[in-house]
Amino acid sequence: MRPARRIAAALALVIAALASPSAQVPGWLEPYREPVSRLIEAATTSDTAWERLAELTDSFGHRLSGSQGLADAIEWAMARMRADGFDVVRADPVKVPHWIRGRESLEMVEPRRERIPMLGLGMSVGTPAEGIEAELLVVSSFAELERRSEEARGRIVLFDVPYRGYSQTVAYRTNGAVHAARHGAVAVLVRSIGPQGLRTPHTGMLSYRPDVPPIPAAAIPVEDSKRLARMAARGNRLRLRLHMEARLGPDADSANVIAELRGRERPEEVVVLACHLDSWDVGTGASDDGGGCVAVWEAARLMLALDLRPRRTVRVVLFTNEENGLRGALDYRRRYAGELNRHVLMIESDLGVAAPTGFGFTGNDTAREQVRAIASMLAPIDAVHIGPSGGGADIGPSVDAGRIPAMSPEVDSSEYFRIHHTEADTIEQVDPRGLARHVAALAAMAYVVADMPARLGEVPGTR
Amino acid sequence: MRPARRIAAALALVIAALASPSAQVPGWLEPYREPVSRLIEAATTSDTAWERLAELTDSFGHRLSGSQGLADAIEWAMARMRADGFDVVRADPVKVPHWIRGRESLEMVEPRRERIPMLGLGMSVGTPAEGIEAELLVVSSFAELERRSEEARGRIVLFDVPYRGYSQTVAYRTNGAVHAARHGAVAVLVRSIGPQGLRTPHTGMLSYRPDVPPIPAAAIPVEDSKRLARMAARGNRLRLRLHMEARLGPDADSANVIAELRGRERPEEVVVLACHLDSWDVGTGASDDGGGCVAVWEAARLMLALDLRPRRTVRVVLFTNEENGLRGALDYRRRYAGELNRHVLMIESDLGVAAPTGFGFTGNDTAREQVRAIASMLAPIDAVHIGPSGGGADIGPSVDAGRIPAMSPEVDSSEYFRIHHTEADTIEQVDPRGLARHVAALAAMAYVVADMPARLGEVPGTR
Repeated sequence: MRPARRIAAALALVIAALASPSAQVPGWLEPYREPVSRLIEAATTSDTAWERLAELTDSFGHRLSGSQGLADAIEWAMARMRADGFDVVRADPVKVPHWIRGRESLEMVEPRRERIPMLGLGMSVGTPAEGIEAELLVVSSFAELERRSEEARGRIVLFDVPYRGYSQTVAYRTNGAVHAARHGAVAVLVRSIGPQGLRTPHTGMLSYRPDVPPIPAAAIPVEDSKRLARMAARGNRLRLRLHMEARLGPDADSANVIAELRGRERPEEVVVLACHLDSWDVGTGASDDGGGCVAVWEAARLMLALDLRPRRTVRVVLFTNEENGLRGALDYRRRYAGELNRHVLMIESDLGVAAPTGFGFTGNDTAREQVRAIASMLAPIDAVHIGPSGGGADIGPSVDAGRIPAMSPEVDSSEYFRIHHTEADTIEQVDPRGLARHVAALAAMAYVVADMPARLGEVPGTR
Repeated sequence: MRPARRIAAALALVIAALASPSAQVPGWLEPYREPVSRLIEAATTSDTAWERLAELTDSFGHRLSGSQGLADAIEWAMARMRADGFDVVRADPVKVPHWIRGRESLEMVEPRRERIPMLGLGMSVGTPAEGIEAELLVVSSFAELERRSEEARGRIVLFDVPYRGYSQTVAYRTNGAVHAARHGAVAVLVRSIGPQGLRTPHTGMLSYRPDVPPIPAAAIPVEDSKRLARMAARGNRLRLRLHMEARLGPDADSANVIAELRGRERPEEVVVLACHLDSWDVGTGASDDGGGCVAVWEAARLMLALDLRPRRTVRVVLFTNEENGLRGALDYRRRYAGELNRHVLMIESDLGVAAPTGFGFTGNDTAREQVRAIASMLAPIDAVHIGPSGGGADIGPSVDAGRIPAMSPEVDSSEYFRIHHTEADTIEQVDPRGLARHVAALAAMAYVVADMPARLGEVPGTR
């Protein structure tokens, strides 16, 4: 696909590299100039990652934990990885929650009948079969709910909270149900956690607490949330009817997929390239996180294809169940507890596969200096920046348990959060050129860290 | 709402006007400097239009011909126009088609089961109650369908045609059903006529022909169309199941709404400010064309409010049934056939209410020079450009019959066509500042044309 464009792009990179003054790098890095530039060239002149993502998302649809799509995608990935020639391809079995959305709808019944677009929140309980009909209370914060506690009893509460960035706003999705139930609400709605889309609801995980009755919870588009708030402000009495069949089935079989390129000298030392293969049950999880999976996988495959076998093992891990349970992450920590001290670095890609500006990194100062030096060789793809912290939900438990250096590509994630957890998370939102650069950066960084003479974070000769 | 921002914006305009060298205008225009600047200031410091649009779209939802929403919106508009103090407020009754969408769905059944977002095309027939299940044939043009005619029989045909601008691509929506049926297809799907959205199908009108059997027709999002095309190209056999309850009810009562500011000297000469109040049955028709309606209405109301009664009559016409029949447009032409020769200018706003760069205009050279001179006074709002042609679907029949000069605000309509005929056509896509400038341009242009000594297109003193 688009080979001419690819070749032109690659030539542009080569010209840029030749034109720019050679960056000063430590002596131990000099031998990596050549393999790094081969990896970058191979990544940026290939469509393999994008084509794999197309095949994954076209063939299996969404990949919610417990779904046939996820099970089929796991089989497919393992078959393809074996064909790629990885030394080890295996599935680490993991039991995962199986949340089933079922049919769902939200309707305004007063002052007039009208369907409102919605998505039930992941892990929400359903409504009774006849639905829940109640008057609406619109609040714009937890504090306003506290002040208007008397009005919440028996109502559906809408948190109409402006989006101020994902981490700043997501608490209304995660904890809204518990807050509303504490004040006697019968159901909760949240303005979708994301910038305004095109009437686009965003699903995502909620949390219940054992001491608070679980109430059904759903997200509505920004537009509808603002509209209901305007109508309430005009004094309209609003009645809504929510119907959700959502339920939890028994735990289902799933697995983390592991593929390894075994190290040629220190195979017991591992650099992990991680992502999660599960998704929400809307869209096809192309950016969250199918793209991360094809990117980390392709980064390792390129080492194989270019005959670049590093000193240490490069292990690709396609985690399961990131979205609603982290069971894959927890299984990895338990299963490899005895080996975490030989994990040199864990890298996760789960914020979209745009062209990275570098990496976020968490680790000691020596390691930071080393990855900064490695990143300086990524100037041809403008990925030289090392930010103050890196990590990911899937690698988090192991990183914490093993005090392992953690890294993640640094990307502009504003587009990612526009489509995150929506029906619009499809491959059409993934730029092939950005993805190719994402692969290039991952491949170069993982290869050098896996191959460098000193272990990352150690001063050469001190071991 | 936002009064501080409004005042700041207005001050900026005044400063810009003072700072810029005074444009040379013909002598007859000099007296209009002051009223034009009052109209601009009033429009750009007021939220009336946006607030009216919010009230319209929040209160009545969509306004498809034959719907309760349209009937209620007509009543509401007339009540508000009476309260505004227009000299004449009346409804010209019009019978309109009543197309009913009903429930509808599209599902992939092979190679796997999956719901595909869709919108039936307006005026489409429905499917049998059990739906239509058939193999899919994907083509990318009418020419490819001709070549593959043998494969179309008994199939559902998908026109996967890249969007190259609305007028360049809309024929696949309008005529796709007739083309496909001629080759024996049992139903037709089209890639939505619009740029890629967020998994956003676009509805819109189709045409059948008496000599070709009508088959059900629906639009699918760009993403799904491209995905089905990719799957077909990989050799997948695709089976889809389309279910649509769409049907035509008996013609319904509706009306064109007329509000007039009677001319103080030549009331029989009319400048029309037009829009259409009906919409598709998705979203709330905020841009198509609720925004046009509040804009033309507000332009006339500002003349009233500022006591600027022009020589000629300014007539606001909120047309009915633009989307699926043009019955309002045809009624106007018939009803006012004897008066069209006294229609000085017809202006329609139906391409979104962004800040205009000027106007498109169709008329004789004298008229063009006159409107160009008037537009030169719109420098403070950057709306001085006069483009080669203007018009609109609602004014079209009358313009043609009466050879009436025709005009439309010149706007960047790329955002309009992104949300046009979708669930995302809501007021959140309407920029209040753009709308205010739209109003300002309409008010100034309509006022001067209605008041200028010579009739538009005539050289002063030649009558």
